[in-house]
Amino acid sequence: MSKLDDEDTFKILIATDIHLGYLEKDAIRGNDSYNTLDEILKCAKTNQVDFILLGGDLFHDNKPSRRCLHNCITMLRRYCMGDTPIHFNILSDQNVNFNTTEFPWVNYQDENLNISIPAFSIHGNHDDPTGAEGLCALDLLSASGLVNHFGHSHSVEKIEISPILMQKGKTKLALFGLGSIPDERLYRMFVNNQVTMLRPKEDQDEWFNLFTIHQNRSKHGPTNYIPEQFLDDFIDLVVWGHEHECLIAPTRNEQQLFYVTQPGSSVATSLSPGEATKKHIGLLRVKGRKMNLEKIPLKTVRQFFIQDVVLADYQDQFTPDTPQVTKKVEDLCYAKVTEMLEEAERERLGCLLTPEKPLIRLRVDYSGGFEAFNTSRFSQKFVERVANPKDIIHFLRRREQKEDIKDEVNVDYGKLLKTTAVEGLRVEDLVKQYFEATEQTVQLSLLTEKGMGKAIQEFVDKDEKDAIEELITYQLEKTQRHLQARGVTTEQDIDAEVRAAACMGNRAEEVNVAINRAKALRLERGDEPVDADLSRELALDSDEDSVPFPPPARGRGRGGRGRGGRGRGRGELSYYLSQIKAH
Amino acid sequence: MSKLDDEDTFKILIATDIHLGYLEKDAIRGNDSYNTLDEILKCAKTNQVDFILLGGDLFHDNKPSRRCLHNCITMLRRYCMGDTPIHFNILSDQNVNFNTTEFPWVNYQDENLNISIPAFSIHGNHDDPTGAEGLCALDLLSASGLVNHFGHSHSVEKIEISPILMQKGKTKLALFGLGSIPDERLYRMFVNNQVTMLRPKEDQDEWFNLFTIHQNRSKHGPTNYIPEQFLDDFIDLVVWGHEHECLIAPTRNEQQLFYVTQPGSSVATSLSPGEATKKHIGLLRVKGRKMNLEKIPLKTVRQFFIQDVVLADYQDQFTPDTPQVTKKVEDLCYAKVTEMLEEAERERLGCLLTPEKPLIRLRVDYSGGFEAFNTSRFSQKFVERVANPKDIIHFLRRREQKEDIKDEVNVDYGKLLKTTAVEGLRVEDLVKQYFEATEQTVQLSLLTEKGMGKAIQEFVDKDEKDAIEELITYQLEKTQRHLQARGVTTEQDIDAEVRAAACMGNRAEEVNVAINRAKALRLERGDEPVDADLSRELALDSDEDSVPFPPPARGRGRGGRGRGGRGRGRGELSYYLSQIKAH
Repeated sequence: MSKLDDEDTFKILIATDIHLGYLEKDAIRGNDSYNTLDEILKCAKTNQVDFILLGGDLFHDNKPSRRCLHNCITMLRRYCMGDTPIHFNILSDQNVNFNTTEFPWVNYQDENLNISIPAFSIHGNHDDPTGAEGLCALDLLSASGLVNHFGHSHSVEKIEISPILMQKGKTKLALFGLGSIPDERLYRMFVNNQVTMLRPKEDQDEWFNLFTIHQNRSKHGPTNYIPEQFLDDFIDLVVWGHEHECLIAPTRNEQQLFYVTQPGSSVATSLSPGEATKKHIGLLRVKGRKMNLEKIPLKTVRQFFIQDVVLADYQDQFTPDTPQVTKKVEDLCYAKVTEMLEEAERERLGCLLTPEKPLIRLRVDYSGGFEAFNTSRFSQKFVERVANPKDIIHFLRRREQKEDIKDEVNVDYGKLLKTTAVEGLRVEDLVKQYFEATEQTVQLSLLTEKGMGKAIQEFVDKDEKDAIEELITYQLEKTQRHLQARGVTTEQDIDAEVRAAACMGNRAEEVNVAINRAKALRLERGDEPVDADLSRELALDSDEDSVPFPPPARGRGRGGRGRGGRGRGRGELSYYLSQIKAH
Repeated sequence: MSKLDDEDTFKILIATDIHLGYLEKDAIRGNDSYNTLDEILKCAKTNQVDFILLGGDLFHDNKPSRRCLHNCITMLRRYCMGDTPIHFNILSDQNVNFNTTEFPWVNYQDENLNISIPAFSIHGNHDDPTGAEGLCALDLLSASGLVNHFGHSHSVEKIEISPILMQKGKTKLALFGLGSIPDERLYRMFVNNQVTMLRPKEDQDEWFNLFTIHQNRSKHGPTNYIPEQFLDDFIDLVVWGHEHECLIAPTRNEQQLFYVTQPGSSVATSLSPGEATKKHIGLLRVKGRKMNLEKIPLKTVRQFFIQDVVLADYQDQFTPDTPQVTKKVEDLCYAKVTEMLEEAERERLGCLLTPEKPLIRLRVDYSGGFEAFNTSRFSQKFVERVANPKDIIHFLRRREQKEDIKDEVNVDYGKLLKTTAVEGLRVEDLVKQYFEATEQTVQLSLLTEKGMGKAIQEFVDKDEKDAIEELITYQLEKTQRHLQARGVTTEQDIDAEVRAAACMGNRAEEVNVAINRAKALRLERGDEPVDADLSRELALDSDEDSVPFPPPARGRGRGGRGRGGRGRGRGELSYYLSQIKAH
């Protein structure tokens, strides 16, 4: 036991974005997320933490597979149940804290369950509540008594965040949580003073205020993230989920005078630079108003190396006009990948828990007249050594792409949203439009390929399987009586976009475009129109290869624009300026 | 407490086919299955039973919805956890009994769970194990420690049924269970001596042998059921699941000298006569070698009334040539339905737990030249009073149908199966064939209506959602490079059937035909061909309206044909002739 540990010190294991079940059917990577959850829970047990705090996206799929749920339940039962006594009390009204279950009390106080490590979790955007009952996958765990799901706001009008008030010895900890909410909506609610964080009236300066949130921290558009400045400055530490890059060392927000820790995902769900940062979880100690965060490297995480090559920079070796230039480019890439593999091997030496085959990504900027080489032949060379042989190489044109982004930023998306938000479009509607747009020119049989399969998969994954029949019935009706004129601008835009994609011969892409657009619009369903940069929104989360190159600058540390001098939504509560320091 | 109850008496609540989640999205009937599970568990608690025994199909869907799992977990935690002490011990090797979990011991002996009523369940055909892991929905409950899943045989070569050996006071109870297995396969395994029931060597005559099974008990074809004579005659009582008709009073098999109780489903999943029998669960008492089964009527079950009308029997009132005969027929039906509604109301008087709107079915035999009337207008009249207004009336032609059945029985299905079984066809394959059969003549767009939607739904329900993409990709490839000749007889048969159905203009039907055929064939996947009457198999289970009219005679109490003088698969164990009597 560390000398830091005593009867007044909370020991909290913090982790987020475990994405259980990610690529679970992949022959090589299928067990990665499970192995890492096992490591995390084992780590909690070894370190005898008081509790585990998860920042959302425990599950990758909104509706996890049976295997995924079974593995999760089994691991939680294995590691979090047992005789170890719990050394902290809960002082708040648990009916308010745990409002998603028939058993509204912390699991370790349940007379019928013997919990050794309580886990507290908010939900993420991947495992968010859906359906009429507003249940999410976490709620199955909380009904079973294996996890304490908190921070679920049932209202879209007003959010009141009631902390779980905990006491261990002399230390008082107020644990605030807010499950994932579409960024624009939450942004607007902050701006409109609809978000309130409740604080205990008594002994306000004795509480350590810990807030868990699962939102964009990077700025993906004017209102498509949550500026740190929106958060109340009585907070001492924010555990920020959703962002996959591990930036776990607390950074100080000089304006708000609180700290932010961003643990990052524990499995790479995209091959973007953020995921290549070494993965950690945190052991947070809180004593009185002081805190300490110990970084714990994860050993089971598959290594991931990423490098960029700009072909135009190799003028001493070749230009687009050099004979056999494509062969030379391929040789260069081969050397780069081999280099990374050797580095991976050196690093892995002696790490028995680390999977043997690393993830490798080489981003090749071939602008300036170069041609892409055959990647499938290239992949073959690395089948035995790389976990993702099929997509090692990613060709892109840097200059062109930059211009594209610039163009998109200039689009008046606010206007676009104004139209669609009023229409209240749902994903289903958008896919219907997709059908309509394409059936005029293409036989449906041409569409029912991988792209369509993926579209349906989306529905299935989102627990909207009834929509399939509705969708397909609808489509038939349309086919049979032909299309009638439609007049909504947005629909036409989407049609155009879909047709353009179709012309490029990439049909899988076209449905993805429609779906992504649909998702983005859906965020706004039923809400008032606001300014939003859709081009960035489409590149969110784990959608590989859609991350701009280079990644956009983070928005943290800067003033929350669009907020002006309006109130901060803290109700009647007075400010308390935190003076805590990391040590 | 009953005078029957003492420290040597096992009290067991028996129920089966609860079909949790059945029609859960129906505005009227959506909560029926949940209300009845609640009643059943409450009943177990009120009666202070030693344990609950479930005969399979606790869940209606192989992959229950989140709401369904959540409700189930919540109710089990509510009723089956608590401080009430357990008064029986388990003497057998629990690693063998509970072989589907990392926690292979009965839940009430788990140090971390406080179980007041252990529930033991086999799986049914609706909630059977699927996927590479061989997990079923019950396994989520057993991983959580809420249910003890037993009777799961992992081998298809050999089944050894090891009983859970229990002792309460002086009473010794051997609980055997066998989760659902396709009937033909299990039939064949019995015939081939591949099924063994293990008995304790010591004190064989002191054990009460209770066997739970989830198979066809009615004969749906020569080998498409399990004759009672297949079961070892040392058994004292069989709890027979799968059959939905409540025949819970134990009937004696005079040949085997054991008793069979068939609790029946607790929710009507079809509007067939068997479901109209009053629903009960059982309170089974076992003391020494004696047993007593108390019937407990279920109060939350929606009433169901069914009547048959043969129009040709009303010659005194009308014939097909009578003016306005259709109006007269409709009036007659109106009167019949009203009668049933009045009867339902009388019966329901004072039963506050019983839902107000009953299920009503009027089967109208209109053979002899009568015409069907407009049922949608008819339904409108009963919207406020009937739970199933849309399908009250079921028109059928009795004579014609009988002849159809006769014809089908004459088909050499054994030969058919011989071809397909060798091919090892899966549902996926059959649907592919369906596409192939139809794409030659019909544009795919015409197919992607309700029928196709249902087909996809089937995949989704069966946790085979990955098959969708595979299927659709496959279909596109086919469309694009046109069909190549195929030579397998069975495929051609199915094509022909699908085309025939298509000609009749009923496209929803055609996919169902393909799917049902696929299901039937799938039962045989990878097995040796056997004789089977497919026409009956297609009419199995809860597939409404496919039950022959009148229902076929039950096969029980008659010799197991095809079995001859071959051994009974009991290994080295000697016979014990049960002399127990119900009292």
